[in-house]
Amino acid sequence: MSNEVVLTGDRPTGPLHLGHYVGSLLNRVKFQEEYKQYILIADVQALTDNYDNPQKVRDNVLQVALDYLAVGIDPNKSTIFIQSLIPQIAELTVFYMNLVTLNRLKRNPTVKTEIIQKGFGESLPVGFLVYPISQAADITIVQGTLVPVGEDQLPMIEQANEIIRSFNNIYKTEVFSNIRAIIPEVPRLSGIDGKAKMSKSLGNAIYLSDSSDDLRKKVMSMYTDSGHLRVEDPGKIEGNVVFTYLDVFDIDKVKVAQLKEHYQKGGLGDVVLKKYLFEVLENIISPIRQKRQEFAKDPSYVMEILKKGTQTTLETAENTMSKVRQAMKLNYFD
Amino acid sequence: MSNEVVLTGDRPTGPLHLGHYVGSLLNRVKFQEEYKQYILIADVQALTDNYDNPQKVRDNVLQVALDYLAVGIDPNKSTIFIQSLIPQIAELTVFYMNLVTLNRLKRNPTVKTEIIQKGFGESLPVGFLVYPISQAADITIVQGTLVPVGEDQLPMIEQANEIIRSFNNIYKTEVFSNIRAIIPEVPRLSGIDGKAKMSKSLGNAIYLSDSSDDLRKKVMSMYTDSGHLRVEDPGKIEGNVVFTYLDVFDIDKVKVAQLKEHYQKGGLGDVVLKKYLFEVLENIISPIRQKRQEFAKDPSYVMEILKKGTQTTLETAENTMSKVRQAMKLNYFD
Repeated sequence: MSNEVVLTGDRPTGPLHLGHYVGSLLNRVKFQEEYKQYILIADVQALTDNYDNPQKVRDNVLQVALDYLAVGIDPNKSTIFIQSLIPQIAELTVFYMNLVTLNRLKRNPTVKTEIIQKGFGESLPVGFLVYPISQAADITIVQGTLVPVGEDQLPMIEQANEIIRSFNNIYKTEVFSNIRAIIPEVPRLSGIDGKAKMSKSLGNAIYLSDSSDDLRKKVMSMYTDSGHLRVEDPGKIEGNVVFTYLDVFDIDKVKVAQLKEHYQKGGLGDVVLKKYLFEVLENIISPIRQKRQEFAKDPSYVMEILKKGTQTTLETAENTMSKVRQAMKLNYFD
Repeated sequence: MSNEVVLTGDRPTGPLHLGHYVGSLLNRVKFQEEYKQYILIADVQALTDNYDNPQKVRDNVLQVALDYLAVGIDPNKSTIFIQSLIPQIAELTVFYMNLVTLNRLKRNPTVKTEIIQKGFGESLPVGFLVYPISQAADITIVQGTLVPVGEDQLPMIEQANEIIRSFNNIYKTEVFSNIRAIIPEVPRLSGIDGKAKMSKSLGNAIYLSDSSDDLRKKVMSMYTDSGHLRVEDPGKIEGNVVFTYLDVFDIDKVKVAQLKEHYQKGGLGDVVLKKYLFEVLENIISPIRQKRQEFAKDPSYVMEILKKGTQTTLETAENTMSKVRQAMKLNYFD
């Protein structure tokens, strides 16, 4: 096994969907065989823009954990933990805040984009602005070295590495190692409406917890080709969500190629095509859904897993902080 | 004894001086008889603008504690604690950051003034900007209700009360009570050079730890009246530091009145006058110095006091945080 430590995770603001599945969950199931892997349920970060809805955040901690277990994240191989239960992250965040200027933070392209997207305007909460700093603390508290991210999140890793360099330099220590981003080669899954991103807020997501009926309805409502009105008409493949999904999820590539040819020639109706995609997706989601329902019957068992993972993380975090306190000469009673 | 809880403290960036003595230390010796009193040695806050000099901060934790004990702060009556050892303050700071907007923080008059004074310009560390939020956490983590401050610090209390109101309102709780500022009626002590404020950075301070010799030299170099060149000349009282100090420190008010009259008439030399002030100050500082030297012989005893105070504070802080987590629905394992 490698010496690298992977840190990854999700904000518990909703159940996870197929976009998460292909974008990160499948990779985590692989990573846990190769690396030490910490998976963070980022409730504190979720509160930065959901501070007035703590019940939503709390409820989704369990939902996200259920999704993890259902897709095959194995608590014996991955350490799953709850962010708010690791006070050392907050401590490190406070120390890191001294090493970053306000101007640097405002220049972070990821944050800049998100501030506009979320429409904070003049009332930007300090907690939201500061979240790249707390992300650096999330990663370094477990001595993370590898962080799987999308291209758009690279500035966050850059920011974290700047903080690490400052810290090591100012406090004459080597307690933290440079972080490397892993940009997994995964397709970005569009929503069922064809919009670039599948997301809860856009209401265009297929959840790992969707019932068979819901899945069918969502597939049947998928955007295909607005010009493809009659079965015999030739249809377009580009921008056709059904084919995007088949490309991602159907392992029978020959079959997909045949369907594409048929669709473009004309004579393949949307309903037939969608029924086929439904079968493909149902084959993937059905065992996940089943496993999820099993775990959902015993939430206290799931919470016990989170408790154990949190305990393990607390030990790692305290180990890191003891080095941090030594470097910062705050180890008064050692 | 009152139900009020006093929170007060100092940044450990240097030993304490006569300005602290009349401005806050004497009051604390009184307050500890009337209130539950927590005294914070604010090393985390000191690091916000001394992050690159942690040794200075560390060393002064002991120096400040020695000053406390020397002036009569009694660890059996007051709880003295070290900020960095209370992780709950950082946790609460992170939660509070969601309740304050960046614009609100930038409008804080105290912070605005200090940013200019410290010349941060474009490179303002986030930690410094955020310190009114962490001060709110300092106060509320011990459920403080009374905070002795100077007039210039009132905006900090206002900011803290805004945070408390938001917190109680958003999380439908009454965990925090409104904070009241106590503005003690104390003279603001000018520096020995006559500048408005006695401060370490201005190099115009008389320390509680000054030797008898140092004290004499400082008194002898005091600014009096630049027009008072010969003994027989009439001298001015206004702006004359020696008289300012006599007004504050000499309990023999009749004697001070006589000296003033004599000085204004002419015939009272600066040297005679300063020698008298030296005696007055030496009578005050000498027992403090002696007590300080006693404690300084056994730093481990002093550190033990800080350890105990910190332990007591940790219990209070954990109690507060357990209410906070309940209100924020982050009590996953209760």
